[in-house]
Amino acid sequence: MRALRTELPPDTEPMPRIDPAPSIDAAPNTADIAARYDVVRQRTLQLAAPLSDEDCCAQSMPDASPVKWHLAHTTWFFETFVLEPNEPGFAPFHPAFRVLFNSYYNGIGDKHPRHQRGLLTRPSMAQVRLYRAHVDARMLALLAQRPDLAGLVELGLQHEQQHQELILTDIKHLLAQNAMAPAYQEGGWSQPVQPASPLHAWTSHAGGVVSIGHAGQGFCFDNELPRHRVVVEPFMLADRLVNNAEFLAFIEAGGYRDPALWLSEGWDWVRSHQVAHPLYWRQLDGDWHEFTLAGLHALDPLQPLTHISLYEADAFARWSEARLPTEAEWELAAGMVPPADAASSLHPQSGGPDWFGQCWQWTSSSYAPYPGFATAAGALGEYNGKFMLNQYVLRGSSCATPAGHARASYRNFFPASTRWQFTGIRLAR
Amino acid sequence: MRALRTELPPDTEPMPRIDPAPSIDAAPNTADIAARYDVVRQRTLQLAAPLSDEDCCAQSMPDASPVKWHLAHTTWFFETFVLEPNEPGFAPFHPAFRVLFNSYYNGIGDKHPRHQRGLLTRPSMAQVRLYRAHVDARMLALLAQRPDLAGLVELGLQHEQQHQELILTDIKHLLAQNAMAPAYQEGGWSQPVQPASPLHAWTSHAGGVVSIGHAGQGFCFDNELPRHRVVVEPFMLADRLVNNAEFLAFIEAGGYRDPALWLSEGWDWVRSHQVAHPLYWRQLDGDWHEFTLAGLHALDPLQPLTHISLYEADAFARWSEARLPTEAEWELAAGMVPPADAASSLHPQSGGPDWFGQCWQWTSSSYAPYPGFATAAGALGEYNGKFMLNQYVLRGSSCATPAGHARASYRNFFPASTRWQFTGIRLAR
Amino acid sequence: MRALRTELPPDTEPMPRIDPAPSIDAAPNTADIAARYDVVRQRTLQLAAPLSDEDCCAQSMPDASPVKWHLAHTTWFFETFVLEPNEPGFAPFHPAFRVLFNSYYNGIGDKHPRHQRGLLTRPSMAQVRLYRAHVDARMLALLAQRPDLAGLVELGLQHEQQHQELILTDIKHLLAQNAMAPAYQEGGWSQPVQPASPLHAWTSHAGGVVSIGHAGQGFCFDNELPRHRVVVEPFMLADRLVNNAEFLAFIEAGGYRDPALWLSEGWDWVRSHQVAHPLYWRQLDGDWHEFTLAGLHALDPLQPLTHISLYEADAFARWSEARLPTEAEWELAAGMVPPADAASSLHPQSGGPDWFGQCWQWTSSSYAPYPGFATAAGALGEYNGKFMLNQYVLRGSSCATPAGHARASYRNFFPASTRWQFTGIRLAR
Amino acid sequence: MRALRTELPPDTEPMPRIDPAPSIDAAPNTADIAARYDVVRQRTLQLAAPLSDEDCCAQSMPDASPVKWHLAHTTWFFETFVLEPNEPGFAPFHPAFRVLFNSYYNGIGDKHPRHQRGLLTRPSMAQVRLYRAHVDARMLALLAQRPDLAGLVELGLQHEQQHQELILTDIKHLLAQNAMAPAYQEGGWSQPVQPASPLHAWTSHAGGVVSIGHAGQGFCFDNELPRHRVVVEPFMLADRLVNNAEFLAFIEAGGYRDPALWLSEGWDWVRSHQVAHPLYWRQLDGDWHEFTLAGLHALDPLQPLTHISLYEADAFARWSEARLPTEAEWELAAGMVPPADAASSLHPQSGGPDWFGQCWQWTSSSYAPYPGFATAAGALGEYNGKFMLNQYVLRGSSCATPAGHARASYRNFFPASTRWQFTGIRLAR
Repeated sequence: MRALRTELPPDTEPMPRIDPAPSIDAAPNTADIAARYDVVRQRTLQLAAPLSDEDCCAQSMPDASPVKWHLAHTTWFFETFVLEPNEPGFAPFHPAFRVLFNSYYNGIGDKHPRHQRGLLTRPSMAQVRLYRAHVDARMLALLAQRPDLAGLVELGLQHEQQHQELILTDIKHLLAQNAMAPAYQEGGWSQPVQPASPLHAWTSHAGGVVSIGHAGQGFCFDNELPRHRVVVEPFMLADRLVNNAEFLAFIEAGGYRDPALWLSEGWDWVRSHQVAHPLYWRQLDGDWHEFTLAGLHALDPLQPLTHISLYEADAFARWSEARLPTEAEWELAAGMVPPADAASSLHPQSGGPDWFGQCWQWTSSSYAPYPGFATAAGALGEYNGKFMLNQYVLRGSSCATPAGHARASYRNFFPASTRWQFTGIRLAR
Repeated sequence: MRALRTELPPDTEPMPRIDPAPSIDAAPNTADIAARYDVVRQRTLQLAAPLSDEDCCAQSMPDASPVKWHLAHTTWFFETFVLEPNEPGFAPFHPAFRVLFNSYYNGIGDKHPRHQRGLLTRPSMAQVRLYRAHVDARMLALLAQRPDLAGLVELGLQHEQQHQELILTDIKHLLAQNAMAPAYQEGGWSQPVQPASPLHAWTSHAGGVVSIGHAGQGFCFDNELPRHRVVVEPFMLADRLVNNAEFLAFIEAGGYRDPALWLSEGWDWVRSHQVAHPLYWRQLDGDWHEFTLAGLHALDPLQPLTHISLYEADAFARWSEARLPTEAEWELAAGMVPPADAASSLHPQSGGPDWFGQCWQWTSSSYAPYPGFATAAGALGEYNGKFMLNQYVLRGSSCATPAGHARASYRNFFPASTRWQFTGIRLAR
Repeated sequence: MRALRTELPPDTEPMPRIDPAPSIDAAPNTADIAARYDVVRQRTLQLAAPLSDEDCCAQSMPDASPVKWHLAHTTWFFETFVLEPNEPGFAPFHPAFRVLFNSYYNGIGDKHPRHQRGLLTRPSMAQVRLYRAHVDARMLALLAQRPDLAGLVELGLQHEQQHQELILTDIKHLLAQNAMAPAYQEGGWSQPVQPASPLHAWTSHAGGVVSIGHAGQGFCFDNELPRHRVVVEPFMLADRLVNNAEFLAFIEAGGYRDPALWLSEGWDWVRSHQVAHPLYWRQLDGDWHEFTLAGLHALDPLQPLTHISLYEADAFARWSEARLPTEAEWELAAGMVPPADAASSLHPQSGGPDWFGQCWQWTSSSYAPYPGFATAAGALGEYNGKFMLNQYVLRGSSCATPAGHARASYRNFFPASTRWQFTGIRLAR
Repeated sequence: MRALRTELPPDTEPMPRIDPAPSIDAAPNTADIAARYDVVRQRTLQLAAPLSDEDCCAQSMPDASPVKWHLAHTTWFFETFVLEPNEPGFAPFHPAFRVLFNSYYNGIGDKHPRHQRGLLTRPSMAQVRLYRAHVDARMLALLAQRPDLAGLVELGLQHEQQHQELILTDIKHLLAQNAMAPAYQEGGWSQPVQPASPLHAWTSHAGGVVSIGHAGQGFCFDNELPRHRVVVEPFMLADRLVNNAEFLAFIEAGGYRDPALWLSEGWDWVRSHQVAHPLYWRQLDGDWHEFTLAGLHALDPLQPLTHISLYEADAFARWSEARLPTEAEWELAAGMVPPADAASSLHPQSGGPDWFGQCWQWTSSSYAPYPGFATAAGALGEYNGKFMLNQYVLRGSSCATPAGHARASYRNFFPASTRWQFTGIRLAR
């Protein structure tokens, strides 16, 4: 999706930055980055393992991409940004792939139309696997000669991890269109115990003139920089995510029918799309169910609410006499929490820590450049910066986020109507 | 697509009709219809043989369906209209298929949304093959007991043949969206010889009060009945189809830019879609090429023009100081020609007879019921009749039409903007 | 709207035709045509008399035009087609008007966008009146010198009469958008007497090989020619139009909710537009009302049903176990009836003759050229011919049609979804 | 448009606030507010004086409203929010007006569809003038009895001033659709002198932890509160607005064709709307002209650029190796400048002070609530708050802003694609 700060911006010192040999926790040596390359690349294939070639080819909406396209595009990223400028005697695996698997880089040239990715029955899934293997071999050979490329390769791996999450959200959206409600991954689903829903507690924060943005030596994306000061008034945050039972109360109180609860644009959205419940909720014989990556299950009232738009998050907060946090508030509070990885359930779980690994949490902050933000030169500069308009920041990470990918300064962003990501709500006051 | 007259309409005797034991040329006995069932059903699978599971799953536009969907829907037709009302102890192969593979029969119930057929990655292609085998076995068992069902089964086979043609036109449309221009079937393409294009000749017909519509004992669809009298003024028809060289002259004369040549709706269509050439023509380095089921080839000037809308056919005719024939004129002239089957080229060929087996020929006739037309009772009555508005009749058959499926009274029909079928032009005066 | 046959088509003698000195009932002399010019032009202004300048400027949908635009366009027609080629030293009243008031004549040049006619607050209504007076004076001066132009002027007057009807249907549509339901013309509305609705009777016709199309010396449009033979099977027509009570029974029987009654395209239209009653019917406190040019009134059960689409007409006929007539059937039956002019009620009335002067009657006939049809040379050839696709013929005339404008061979035409004209139903069998 | 803070929010003391007797410069007494009421209301009528009733009725796009509708809606505001809850024995002037002239207040009830305001030919302009006079008389009578309503009345007057600006921008948009390019106000246009365009200078600001938002006793809208602290890094602002010559250089350098200059959403907008110049620029015979409220004139290179979207403003800034200011930067810099009123030219003028009175200046700040923002109870709470999503803040004021309406803390807001307002660019670094 979005891009690494690979070089120091020319004139913004002493901004936090990517080390010349960036690292996860510590600077990688050549062996480290090669091993990590292998692990991350294998993980992507493992995500496709439960799926047929047909599953991997289809596209359910313009915002979602076929799994096969994700497999090819992440490979294209390494071929285009690492091999092409650095490999002696570079020749492309297939000349047409430069166009077919370019996502949005105008600096690279033409692009296959985004909404027609599902029509790419050729190259076949088998050919795309071959493409991956081919590029992987050349990448490892190049890395052995060029340890200086480790930072750029790390960007490619972080990019691939972002697509790993999209593989799961996109296949979920596809399978949800099928009346047979097929599971991505059977099993591992326990029927809900249904105790009374305990109220969340409020945690107070003093605010002040504080700093946000990435600090330290590890990897970060360019949009997390520069670290800078902001004023934060005293605030309170809920100590857990909103759960299904609470959102059901909103529905039953007529929340979707009362314009006084909604932003003007949100109310238009509710009426034109006739929205009456979260994206994957379904009422069968009067009982609420939820479509998950494990198939269709009775709604678990204590599980974190997920797959709601910013419009719904904002309306629920207003109904709750609360509000959504700003991204600064969220980062300030979460900065004290070590990023915990999600369990392997592929659905948000109740009962444990939930700053990370359950649902991305909508904030009220428009996605905008930090003061002094600068993009990289060339096509990689398109990674993040050109999307900084009419999108909103989500913080945390979700049950679909790969292990090791989350941090408190991470800025995810989507338009306000987005629902197919694992989005959720943490209330503020 | 469209439906058999299976019963006599109550009050329109002595209309031509389907014999109680309908036949192709002669009434089939049980062995005949069983053998024919097997041949037609096998042919459908053969059409899918060159394709991967991925190819068979994708849908390139709402008007076109995935090959897998065609394989399942034609099977659903037998399961729903033959097995369900006649098989003792009938149980569906899979209850969800009743909805998933219903095309447009409101009388049967809900339908999977037409524009989302490409999202049905489940059932898999393998499961659909199993579905076909399962229904085939039950069909043959039932037929052995119930020779009286031969007429209804024949309708199912004619229906399947219509979908055989659609399999070819729909996969062509899908492959055409791929910048790599993959072939459905490699080989068999000879480079064009390019002699000067000989002018067509005009054949004169006396007209008069004549009869059109199906006559005789063989199968026909309900929309070909009743045979009835019409007045036809004296007319002339071209003795061959318009070819690519002739249409190229129209383009080079500015035909697509002169509103005086176009129907008002056609001119709006040209401008809003920026149409400047037939659907599958492409200009590469200044030379015209055509995408075919055998891949991309240099345009052959003598081949019949194909893949044009009624708007283009009408504008070309006006530019030629001619017009399109009415369906009565066409039937009158073609009635003297025995339907010849196409060669196996999967593209219109020049030089031979071309009333049948090359291109469907646009007429100026709106698709309307013949006087006294009546539909069958029940859902099968939806086969043809409900489409008799804002569509236009095409006559003949195309290179994609199965052998034995064509006849002079056959009425194909599509909206005026249709281009993905093998459509062509025969001029009239 | 649509155009005169002003010359003999080259090769279709002995077709009925416009006399070199065309006439209404008899050939006009110069004084006659000048007097008639004055009467028709005054009538147009009289239609605008009950309206404010604001009423005359607004456009309620792309298909309807502002009254002021009608006043200017009909004047533009005389200026462009009569004065410009014939007046010595011609200079336009205002050069911009050539574009502003061109309806659809590509042969004349650019056109102001059709859907933005309501934005033409300039020229003002006063300036348009001045434009009319100016052109009228020049027209009368020219006519005195050039009696040979009488045929062309007659076409302009017939054209103006068509727009007189549109002034009424278009202002009705505009006023209907206003929640205050203002009347075009107060008064003259009597509360309905509500006797039981008597059944209509069927009148039988023998059919045969008959001739349709205009015959005789009077004016006709080019689309009514050539008169030609057609085969008509024996048929029956209802002796009166369908009334509101009958259509209400269709609604109450669930007619709008049963797909089996509808053409496929009609059913899509019902669902996408959520149609549940005729265009101007409104239910207030449980009682049906109808918006009319005299304001909102309780629905009169015996009045002829009006403002329905061809989709609704066809579904109602199917529900009634009948069908719509073809245009040949209608013309054959109506040819025995002298065209009677409507009363001045501006709404269809029950109880009297209703072939003419109440509602235009939908036929099942697609609007197509008669055999041998030819258009005039030049821009006037665009009058009728270029609309002969995806439209359907209506026969008769309506309560809004000017006196003297109707005849049995007259072919009105509109798309199947049209409802704002005074459309109605006469059943056939 | 947007709403007053009329009460103290319950728990955010000591926030700046509206005085119980709010004032412009000083607290008004009853005579003052009544006199001011009269002046502001008269000014609205004066703006309509150059226009015909037809001009006042038309609506050129959904975002713009007819002048008559503005006249009625501003009156409706007083009738609904002041008279109805406070006048003894209140009866509405006309019951239908409650719906017809409600803009967006869901708390009041139904609304006439926004995009159909141009169809309201009734009530007539004369009736709307009567409506204004009627409400004015009742307002003055009520004010004499209820001096405590002065604050609420002041909100109504500020609201009316916002609509005074819209009257000018909306009528400009309407007249621009007319090929005759009519002027709202003839005269007063001097042909440009064309000296070389002097470069703008940069003014440096130290930034720091500063306060923004309204302070003091005068009137402000609720969205300007609470005044609060923000961190502003050191920055530079241009000392004048971008002018036409500078933007022309951007066009000639291919600015509209280079995706690297544009936000992703902006680039999509340029291509889908084929944007190639500011909204009202027109090239005639190779020379650039600009449509203004005084008609069409040769482009003046030194005049401030106006009528551009945020997309264009952002692309121009990037091309200039600069950026747009944040709203905090703008307010900090402008806070030192007394708001100067515009000249009466109705077009931005060069050469004088331009923080206020020329063009609204796009900022990079998303329109969001200030920390602690709270809305009023009831329908008036919808004034501003519900629009705080996917809109961007503009600062300053324009040549169409009424005298006395501007201040440094004023937050105007529109979607990024907005061009029909007098929008311009002040660069930052």
